Amino acid sequence: MYQRAFVIVLHRANTDGDFKLEDLPGSGGRIDIFCRALNSGLLLSHGIRKDAMVYGVLLGSPCPPVSIKVLGDSVKYLNPDERSTGALIRNALIKLRNRGIYDKGWIKTSPGIYASKLGLKDVLEELKRFNFNIYYLREDGTDIRRINLDLPAAFVMSDSEDLTQEEEEIVEGYSINKLSIGPRSLHTEHCIVIVNNEIDRRITTSAK
Amino acid sequence: MYQRAFVIVLHRANTDGDFKLEDLPGSGGRIDIFCRALNSGLLLSHGIRKDAMVYGVLLGSPCPPVSIKVLGDSVKYLNPDERSTGALIRNALIKLRNRGIYDKGWIKTSPGIYASKLGLKDVLEELKRFNFNIYYLREDGTDIRRINLDLPAAFVMSDSEDLTQEEEEIVEGYSINKLSIGPRSLHTEHCIVIVNNEIDRRITTSAK
Repeated sequence: MYQRAFVIVLHRANTDGDFKLEDLPGSGGRIDIFCRALNSGLLLSHGIRKDAMVYGVLLGSPCPPVSIKVLGDSVKYLNPDERSTGALIRNALIKLRNRGIYDKGWIKTSPGIYASKLGLKDVLEELKRFNFNIYYLREDGTDIRRINLDLPAAFVMSDSEDLTQEEEEIVEGYSINKLSIGPRSLHTEHCIVIVNNEIDRRITTSAK
Repeated sequence: MYQRAFVIVLHRANTDGDFKLEDLPGSGGRIDIFCRALNSGLLLSHGIRKDAMVYGVLLGSPCPPVSIKVLGDSVKYLNPDERSTGALIRNALIKLRNRGIYDKGWIKTSPGIYASKLGLKDVLEELKRFNFNIYYLREDGTDIRRINLDLPAAFVMSDSEDLTQEEEEIVEGYSINKLSIGPRSLHTEHCIVIVNNEIDRRITTSAK
């Protein structure tokens, strides 16, 4: 059963799969951030976090929004390196484009990976329907160590740019709290590592 | 002034720069792990950790050992993505090879990046000379949150393979404690994120 979800808003990420694996940051519109977020969100040293899922909300050209969802309990072929993860994401985008889907439903593009024309609000609505408590990661939020984390929990965060005012209003409409992960401002994928560690510690403690 | 150092033992990492940036895990001998360790060790959201340095001890073919040292207060051209970091490491290995250095001193291969024929013991000796307290990261170590971290601190960890018995004996000869970062076994670069977060919290608290 899913205990944790990460939602990453990727403001410039390419949305049709027309980018080079040799240039994920440039032609992919910083889609390298999503690759690392999948690594941090889902991979253990010798295994996969079956209770986790990661959403990317891709908002770059040419056809935003596109959302990609990766499920820890069923994903295959997810390796730690960025390039092979970039290939999985590109495959998802190309399949979504080729299917010419105009409704918003998810299509399965490889085991455990789904793509859709959903946007940020739709993704949060889906998480709410599945009873996730939604937290918004912000530098000025409450320290994660001082807060009661109600599971299942979803954590919304931005890429290297802040959320726009409009996006922030959407997230605040769903989130029950703002969280920060510590005194320094960190990359998205590093924030995910710290959230996962905090949940690991609480699950282990409560199971004792 | 350096407060933290990370030493990563990379058992199969290529040592002459003859690998493809398109295949860092394969032809590079899992040198992708070192790329991500540099990201986790040194990068902040919009800046570089000037008080951190990262050592890689590369032990793969054809000419082990090679050590690479990256200094947070002077490194340039370090970006978050794996491929560009792989290019910096490859450049360091090629320059070391072309210089034909047989003594063990460091050569500067680009701003803030140094390469040498030093091995694990030499690197630990160097850190000891600079008064670093050396910690060994192991799953069965004491929880990092329960331990007094004496700065400057160096953290020794392995790649996706455990340290050999011989390597472990070397590390135990220098280390003052064994640390673990939580209840789950994580990738090297994720462990670094958690150690950095813990130090950030303690430095911030002690500065108040």
